[in-house]
Amino acid sequence: MSFDAVDVIRTKRDGGVLSAEQIDWAVDAYTRGAIAEEQMASLAMAILLRGMTRPEVARWTDAMIRSGERMDWSELSSPTTDKHSTGGVGDKITLPLAPLVAACGAAVPQLSGRGLGHTGGTLDKLESIPGWRASLSNEEMLEVLRTAGAVVCAAGTGLAPADRKLYALRDVTGTVESIPLIASSIMSKKIAEGTGALVLDVKVGSGAFMKNASDARELARTMVDLGTDHGVRTVALLTAMDTPLGRAVGNAVEVAESVEVLSGGGPADVVELAVALAREMLIGAGLTDAKDPAEALRDGSAMDAWRRMITAQGGDPDAALPIPRESHEVKAPETGFLSRLDAYGVGVAAWRLGAGRARKEDTVSYAAGVTLHAKPGDEVREGQPLLTLHADETDRFERALEALEGAYEIGGKPDPQPLIIDRIA
Amino acid sequence: MSFDAVDVIRTKRDGGVLSAEQIDWAVDAYTRGAIAEEQMASLAMAILLRGMTRPEVARWTDAMIRSGERMDWSELSSPTTDKHSTGGVGDKITLPLAPLVAACGAAVPQLSGRGLGHTGGTLDKLESIPGWRASLSNEEMLEVLRTAGAVVCAAGTGLAPADRKLYALRDVTGTVESIPLIASSIMSKKIAEGTGALVLDVKVGSGAFMKNASDARELARTMVDLGTDHGVRTVALLTAMDTPLGRAVGNAVEVAESVEVLSGGGPADVVELAVALAREMLIGAGLTDAKDPAEALRDGSAMDAWRRMITAQGGDPDAALPIPRESHEVKAPETGFLSRLDAYGVGVAAWRLGAGRARKEDTVSYAAGVTLHAKPGDEVREGQPLLTLHADETDRFERALEALEGAYEIGGKPDPQPLIIDRIA
Repeated sequence: MSFDAVDVIRTKRDGGVLSAEQIDWAVDAYTRGAIAEEQMASLAMAILLRGMTRPEVARWTDAMIRSGERMDWSELSSPTTDKHSTGGVGDKITLPLAPLVAACGAAVPQLSGRGLGHTGGTLDKLESIPGWRASLSNEEMLEVLRTAGAVVCAAGTGLAPADRKLYALRDVTGTVESIPLIASSIMSKKIAEGTGALVLDVKVGSGAFMKNASDARELARTMVDLGTDHGVRTVALLTAMDTPLGRAVGNAVEVAESVEVLSGGGPADVVELAVALAREMLIGAGLTDAKDPAEALRDGSAMDAWRRMITAQGGDPDAALPIPRESHEVKAPETGFLSRLDAYGVGVAAWRLGAGRARKEDTVSYAAGVTLHAKPGDEVREGQPLLTLHADETDRFERALEALEGAYEIGGKPDPQPLIIDRIA
Repeated sequence: MSFDAVDVIRTKRDGGVLSAEQIDWAVDAYTRGAIAEEQMASLAMAILLRGMTRPEVARWTDAMIRSGERMDWSELSSPTTDKHSTGGVGDKITLPLAPLVAACGAAVPQLSGRGLGHTGGTLDKLESIPGWRASLSNEEMLEVLRTAGAVVCAAGTGLAPADRKLYALRDVTGTVESIPLIASSIMSKKIAEGTGALVLDVKVGSGAFMKNASDARELARTMVDLGTDHGVRTVALLTAMDTPLGRAVGNAVEVAESVEVLSGGGPADVVELAVALAREMLIGAGLTDAKDPAEALRDGSAMDAWRRMITAQGGDPDAALPIPRESHEVKAPETGFLSRLDAYGVGVAAWRLGAGRARKEDTVSYAAGVTLHAKPGDEVREGQPLLTLHADETDRFERALEALEGAYEIGGKPDPQPLIIDRIA
């Protein structure tokens, strides 16, 4: 069936509901180039401002999945399960989590992305390990899954090509912040990836895409529905992103922190979240009798899986990580409790230090980033180091420090905030 | 000053007011190509759905005027005055009007357009006159104005190039129907055209762009304000467009009807509107003691001005007009009064017969169109001709007849409706 692009745009513009046929046609025509970029931009803005019904989002997601291949892991002997985070500052959770879940008996076929803006990208972090390769063929993915039980790599161009094209368009047309478009973008890739179960880590707070819990809950609910409708056992955790996760924000520094966690140590919040997500992933995979993830961190089996995974993708788990050439310490201006350390400010600082990219074609510095010497609730003394900034050039510090202005406060002891806010199934 | 396109889009998307600097930058950057088509499409949809304040529309219009040249007719000894119609079916008014006003002593420098969709274009109509040229240089325009007192020609590429680009974009992105964008598009061209006074004929009804009087009034008010703010004496008439104007819809048939009017005859509604608009144009030009336009139709001076105008643009006012090869009569299905004859249905029929174009690059048939043998309120007898369809090929008739299904009704005598609904100054 064929439609007129302007009619489809007008339907949504005037507050109407797009038919299944209109959606199928629009997504397919856009992928083929029969709907021009400017027409899809106008439609995306109309969707952002007018919204979509649940059946519309489901069909839109479905059309994006059908624009490419849907991967199939039925040859594997283990059930598949995966996690997706909506993005946060210091969110290295995938790094310890994928091998941790593999160590407990499930297979993790994770297609991941690169960072854009103030949140980092999992692939950028892993690429700081010498030799590690993000691009694998489907056959190589299967081989790594068989060898290591987990694989984290870049999505190939055959997966949801409609989403790939639309995501790049939304990025430059102010149409990113739409719950139906965010949900369908994430879920089309995760469903096409072929995982049997999925845990969504929906971040809420200053450093997250969703600044308030009600938007985050709506996004989580939309994605859980989409997964469930497509036969993927899906659950979402709403987790706090007002302050960075862990004590490292950047690329190599986050790898180092992940290795600490896999060695049985590491910051409490990273361990808590990794274990909670791992348990959900195992439940989703139907492995209710599996080894407990906390045990897998203690007994070294998660670390063994990590080493197998990194090695299978060409990396050397024992190689030295890139070391920053320059560093700058931010000291506590007075004595008291660190009452606030803003995730967004730290994220922007790390980005400006070189850890992130402003445009897709930019390169990142693996050594750049921020190390936190205190977390909210910690007591600090005047003059003690609060943060260390790492960069390849000293001229990066000035603008990073500007991003940190007003991003931390010393004062009274803050009330402890829960890391895991809600669970949506 | 430079801005980020996504920030500008987000401001409007989130219901904010664009600053003068943002508007100046956006219009200029788009004209230069520094804002991509997809970004402007997204912004246009946000403007359509969020609206613009009066200062925003004024600045947007101003920026579009400043994107090109502003013409200057101060060398002429007569005051300048012009008319713009928002477009209707059978709306050939410019053809008799421009020479009529010239005959009464004002100069009419009209830049006009071609038809797109179900409403015809003044240039397409005039081009059915053998030899007549729509494209003139500024020097040629001045020369025709001096010789004939009126000129009707195509706008050059130097005039409001931002609007030219934006209009083409809006046409394919479902962003035409925005009062701020319509008003700024029309007024930027008319103000850049350099006329000292302007009368707007804002059409209301089934065959018009504005289907109801309140939208039409808002558009008229916005345009009158824009003209006034830019020093152009501007007034608007709201006029009915539920049934075609006159008895001819097409190209050559409308030229023939215009010549009838200039000979002192022609349909009453065309004469009424032409005279009313001419009086307003003369008042705008400050010529309160001028000859009355009704007199100029009777005494042949308007016809003389027409002949001078057509001749000065290379046309032969005595040449035979193109004659349709094929025709088809629609007969009255019963006896009674013609209670309704829908402008939109007739407009679409004429378009499908070949008089209009679906895409800018299409050519039009000069001979194609519709002749009306009865107007609403006329008594008709079963079997008498109601409409004659004209086309170059017989295979055009079927789809034209489909457009006419339900477009006319025979019944009781309808209440007479006023042609001129309101005046906004």
